[in-house]
Amino acid sequence: MSAPDSIPFIGQLSAGRHNLITDVPGLSVGHSTLNNRDHQTGVTLIKPHSGNLFCDKVPAAATVLNGFGKSIGLVQVEELGVLETPIVLTNTFSVGAMAQAQIRQSIKENPEIGREWSTVNPLVFECNDGYLNDIQAMVLGDEHYQQALNNTQAQFIQGAVGAGRGMSCFELKGGIGSASRGVTLKSGESYTVGALVLSNFGRLPTLTIAGKHLGPLMQERLASQKPLTEEKGSIIIIVATNAPLDSRQLKRLSLRAGVGLSRTGAFFGNGSGDIALAFSTAYTLPQQTDRPMPAISFIHDALIDPLFQATADSVEQAIINALWHAETTVGRDGHRRFSLLDIAPDIRNLL
Amino acid sequence: MSAPDSIPFIGQLSAGRHNLITDVPGLSVGHSTLNNRDHQTGVTLIKPHSGNLFCDKVPAAATVLNGFGKSIGLVQVEELGVLETPIVLTNTFSVGAMAQAQIRQSIKENPEIGREWSTVNPLVFECNDGYLNDIQAMVLGDEHYQQALNNTQAQFIQGAVGAGRGMSCFELKGGIGSASRGVTLKSGESYTVGALVLSNFGRLPTLTIAGKHLGPLMQERLASQKPLTEEKGSIIIIVATNAPLDSRQLKRLSLRAGVGLSRTGAFFGNGSGDIALAFSTAYTLPQQTDRPMPAISFIHDALIDPLFQATADSVEQAIINALWHAETTVGRDGHRRFSLLDIAPDIRNLL
Amino acid sequence: MSAPDSIPFIGQLSAGRHNLITDVPGLSVGHSTLNNRDHQTGVTLIKPHSGNLFCDKVPAAATVLNGFGKSIGLVQVEELGVLETPIVLTNTFSVGAMAQAQIRQSIKENPEIGREWSTVNPLVFECNDGYLNDIQAMVLGDEHYQQALNNTQAQFIQGAVGAGRGMSCFELKGGIGSASRGVTLKSGESYTVGALVLSNFGRLPTLTIAGKHLGPLMQERLASQKPLTEEKGSIIIIVATNAPLDSRQLKRLSLRAGVGLSRTGAFFGNGSGDIALAFSTAYTLPQQTDRPMPAISFIHDALIDPLFQATADSVEQAIINALWHAETTVGRDGHRRFSLLDIAPDIRNLL
Amino acid sequence: MSAPDSIPFIGQLSAGRHNLITDVPGLSVGHSTLNNRDHQTGVTLIKPHSGNLFCDKVPAAATVLNGFGKSIGLVQVEELGVLETPIVLTNTFSVGAMAQAQIRQSIKENPEIGREWSTVNPLVFECNDGYLNDIQAMVLGDEHYQQALNNTQAQFIQGAVGAGRGMSCFELKGGIGSASRGVTLKSGESYTVGALVLSNFGRLPTLTIAGKHLGPLMQERLASQKPLTEEKGSIIIIVATNAPLDSRQLKRLSLRAGVGLSRTGAFFGNGSGDIALAFSTAYTLPQQTDRPMPAISFIHDALIDPLFQATADSVEQAIINALWHAETTVGRDGHRRFSLLDIAPDIRNLL
Repeated sequence: MSAPDSIPFIGQLSAGRHNLITDVPGLSVGHSTLNNRDHQTGVTLIKPHSGNLFCDKVPAAATVLNGFGKSIGLVQVEELGVLETPIVLTNTFSVGAMAQAQIRQSIKENPEIGREWSTVNPLVFECNDGYLNDIQAMVLGDEHYQQALNNTQAQFIQGAVGAGRGMSCFELKGGIGSASRGVTLKSGESYTVGALVLSNFGRLPTLTIAGKHLGPLMQERLASQKPLTEEKGSIIIIVATNAPLDSRQLKRLSLRAGVGLSRTGAFFGNGSGDIALAFSTAYTLPQQTDRPMPAISFIHDALIDPLFQATADSVEQAIINALWHAETTVGRDGHRRFSLLDIAPDIRNLL
Repeated sequence: MSAPDSIPFIGQLSAGRHNLITDVPGLSVGHSTLNNRDHQTGVTLIKPHSGNLFCDKVPAAATVLNGFGKSIGLVQVEELGVLETPIVLTNTFSVGAMAQAQIRQSIKENPEIGREWSTVNPLVFECNDGYLNDIQAMVLGDEHYQQALNNTQAQFIQGAVGAGRGMSCFELKGGIGSASRGVTLKSGESYTVGALVLSNFGRLPTLTIAGKHLGPLMQERLASQKPLTEEKGSIIIIVATNAPLDSRQLKRLSLRAGVGLSRTGAFFGNGSGDIALAFSTAYTLPQQTDRPMPAISFIHDALIDPLFQATADSVEQAIINALWHAETTVGRDGHRRFSLLDIAPDIRNLL
Repeated sequence: MSAPDSIPFIGQLSAGRHNLITDVPGLSVGHSTLNNRDHQTGVTLIKPHSGNLFCDKVPAAATVLNGFGKSIGLVQVEELGVLETPIVLTNTFSVGAMAQAQIRQSIKENPEIGREWSTVNPLVFECNDGYLNDIQAMVLGDEHYQQALNNTQAQFIQGAVGAGRGMSCFELKGGIGSASRGVTLKSGESYTVGALVLSNFGRLPTLTIAGKHLGPLMQERLASQKPLTEEKGSIIIIVATNAPLDSRQLKRLSLRAGVGLSRTGAFFGNGSGDIALAFSTAYTLPQQTDRPMPAISFIHDALIDPLFQATADSVEQAIINALWHAETTVGRDGHRRFSLLDIAPDIRNLL
Repeated sequence: MSAPDSIPFIGQLSAGRHNLITDVPGLSVGHSTLNNRDHQTGVTLIKPHSGNLFCDKVPAAATVLNGFGKSIGLVQVEELGVLETPIVLTNTFSVGAMAQAQIRQSIKENPEIGREWSTVNPLVFECNDGYLNDIQAMVLGDEHYQQALNNTQAQFIQGAVGAGRGMSCFELKGGIGSASRGVTLKSGESYTVGALVLSNFGRLPTLTIAGKHLGPLMQERLASQKPLTEEKGSIIIIVATNAPLDSRQLKRLSLRAGVGLSRTGAFFGNGSGDIALAFSTAYTLPQQTDRPMPAISFIHDALIDPLFQATADSVEQAIINALWHAETTVGRDGHRRFSLLDIAPDIRNLL
């Protein structure tokens, strides 16, 4: 599939080597995909580093742009400013199963959890893939978590895979997208910002690609399709960076995910659970108090703008990448979502 | 057990008929209790009204006093200001299972969920009962949810039951406690405020009952007991009222739960997930837009103080009630938590 | 000046009669402008209704997109969900003087304030106009507040006037802009949403007008101009509607102001105080408890999307309108800001 | 006045040398007091360190327990997590004048502000002293700010002084109170926590001193006094520590101020602006990016509980200290507030 060569490039910053969130060193991403008639769903898992996340936590923070969502784990992230499990993306009704899988895996790696040590905070995000997937069936379980975990690697495919298998975006086929940008601060240091989205939001009339408002035209072409009567989507946005930021600064980054999202035509519709989480890999924080706390020089806030811009650009790019990579998919009850490229094979001429 | 007659009464307001959260008309509470050697745990479920909660949602809001907690559902409560399932309390590692049970039950009652209608937001709170309960075993499932649901009634027992079965409080036996207070506003209207706590927090040295700092004395008596090295507890506080409040006002109420909590000697320790949720039964909000929105005259904020006071008093009372009703319990690996009354059968003389 | 005829129209919704925030019935806006060499500054004042605002408060809520700002009044708006004074916009160092002017005026209208009644909450927002204005001089006082108040009317001019006199936007001349949109909900009711911005944010390279990324070209044309080394701007966004929304819903609206802002090229830079406040004129809330609380049927959240979209569109439009109306201005130490139209008289051909 | 010897001691931790917030090294506090018939008011100013605060900012965060308040500066503290001016306490209608005084002083020390550098964020808190003070007169200005600033020293008097001159607490005379506690963490490091309150809240019936509910008895003794019809008070709580905490952790500390406040009988009444701010002196953050950011090892959150406890205890102690030190005061229109010790010279026997 040569289509991705045609993807418009967002902004003036340079992409990282693979234009993926995994351009941030140490990250890995894995999918588990169910593609079986009415079951079009799956799991996507992001590991911030390859070690023991419970013992070496990663600084993190989140912004809820619109809270019509059922994620688990954000209360503790807000209080303590850290992640202690991989980040899991899945469908709305599988959050419980994935949280249990996260707990089991954490206990396997750290048998002290819930005994001598405190409990673990599973972090699971979701979107509603109910149009293409029989979400009521609740078919995902531990084995899909394990598969995604085992599949984690530094490169990964985008589109209708993993948690993105059944997702829709602007009434077209959505799913997993990713991108990255490099920045050099005025102080001279260089850092990478990466984004990964589970893209399942938007109504077609507002679709905007690289500043071009293509929604109305796409809507004409889709005229035979029955539109959604209201937004019941969502987008989960994960932002990673190797810049040394504290959780307050990561919260600022996470809000800028909304900037990239806005540029694509989103307005955080009532029924859309739009949540962005940002984390840094620049340092880790120990679970146990007998290990020393790191001494970190954070980025001066007056130097942070390039990281904000890289966040906005890589999120916008990741959404577009999801649309570009997602293939036309038929699922539950014969529901069909056309891919952008099937509706607009002439997309380059339209931009 | 006649002990409860000796319970000190908190504050100047009058209790409701049964001094239970269910004094707020329409509420019911049910337990499912596991009492089986290493499995000392359970489920407690609160139904705000007896109808279809997804179709007739209840206004609600929450305050996170300390976010070392793994609840699910608060993101959407914050955004939309409503509950749409019963409130479930359980142990930390059973949140996922209970969320799935909530989803299944909601779909059973409303097959349109995840199809024509949007998804449902399960609301599950937890505390860590790992000292008395083998929390790693994750033994709770749908059947316990169903049992708690089927057991809901207007009167219910307190102490080491339901979700409270394995909980500890001030290094004594904790669990479920409840209380209520009636208030008359200056405008003349009378309302009831009720509280139910899942009480699992606190270190013994700070225990304060009805203003009396009993911690040090209790600690002497418990001297043979191995103290916790740090707080790994939590308290979940549910506040209900029949006063017509909107979600902003209910959030204000939920914060005042922390006032009652503070009076007992708590200081919201780092490892304690202290969360308060308040809801009103004065009106419901329809799921579907083809039904009319209610026209509500809310309480004027300048009249709200008695409701704040009733919240603080009923929460303090509910915590004390939990301590009074909870019986000495032996659980996982022979761990034992003494009840307050076993340690202090002379409690009335100490106050 | 016929230029405004050329202003691009944002979105698919229709503008209100004058495409001003005052298309929301009952609103009035007034300016006081200082244009005197180094003093290029002023006051802009918005009255939500023509009555006694302290006695008849207006529901309101705000979102802080980036909190590098020195506004006063938001703490109480967040708690109580109401406005009780006009909204004042001014320069950063005049917030104190304007707060005092608001207090004096409120006392004049309600001598009970600070005596039998509680105190009044002045609401003043600001941007930093220090590039064109000698902000250290702190020349604004009661007389300018009074002038703006006396000047309030249903129509008003935009651009380099009032609080916008000294403001810069995308390194061009910024200032006051306004717009409105009408929406019809699925339930059949029609409402107006209006926006007014004090526009003082942005770096030229990211300027985007109606989806067209014009920044780089404009930067070429401005090449002789010394660019800002970092963002020290801000934008204040006021959103008004006659739809019956509660403060929770108004907070949701205020966040969508960020969507319109994002589309223009903003990414909420570190040094920019970006704050949006939304209020409704559909009902008022009485100061005194001896007057009845209104019984309101709020908009069902599932119907709110058109109001979100109208907010995003009218904010984007208001920013563009500010750029279009602002004239080239010379101020402190001969600092000069070119207007968009002076730099790009061919703007229509560029879009 | 030997009365203070009789002050009950709160909690098990030890007080610092003077049991004042200034036991945290580097801090100084100054008052400016107006005691002139109807003008019973003033200014209290806290300097976190003796250097240039704008150039060397101090990490800080705040919690709004009840937002019926008119402070200025919290928006930026929340975003950036720093203080950059002294903390000023005053009456409600003098916030504007004090903000202007802060700006003028900052410009005097840093002429680049509002020119080459960004603007300064004045931080001013208030309570309503309108019962004893003619608050409408707005008599405070630059000279009172300067006087308080010039008076700053490591020891200071408490009670009806400075901003506390006209304040009431539990319908008795309130004002300025302070206290400190020392803690040793499990890791072995020792730190000081100090609190200063501007105490102006509460209704007499709930007054509780050192766990003893004295309100009803005090009310009997005050029977001839006209009670407040509703709470129109407030409390401002400033917490300082030399422990190395980041702004997230300082926010956690600031919430625990509410624990100490709750123990005195407060329930954060509707009309009370109850705000707590915490800052650390362990390190400073540079204004300019050409100076290096400090590399800090923060306290591990699992070790933070003693700091929480010290916060709660020193806040409770500071409130009691304010009551103990405040003398009976007559002010506006002959309004009189009796001191606790005048009403209860036998106070030691009552505890």
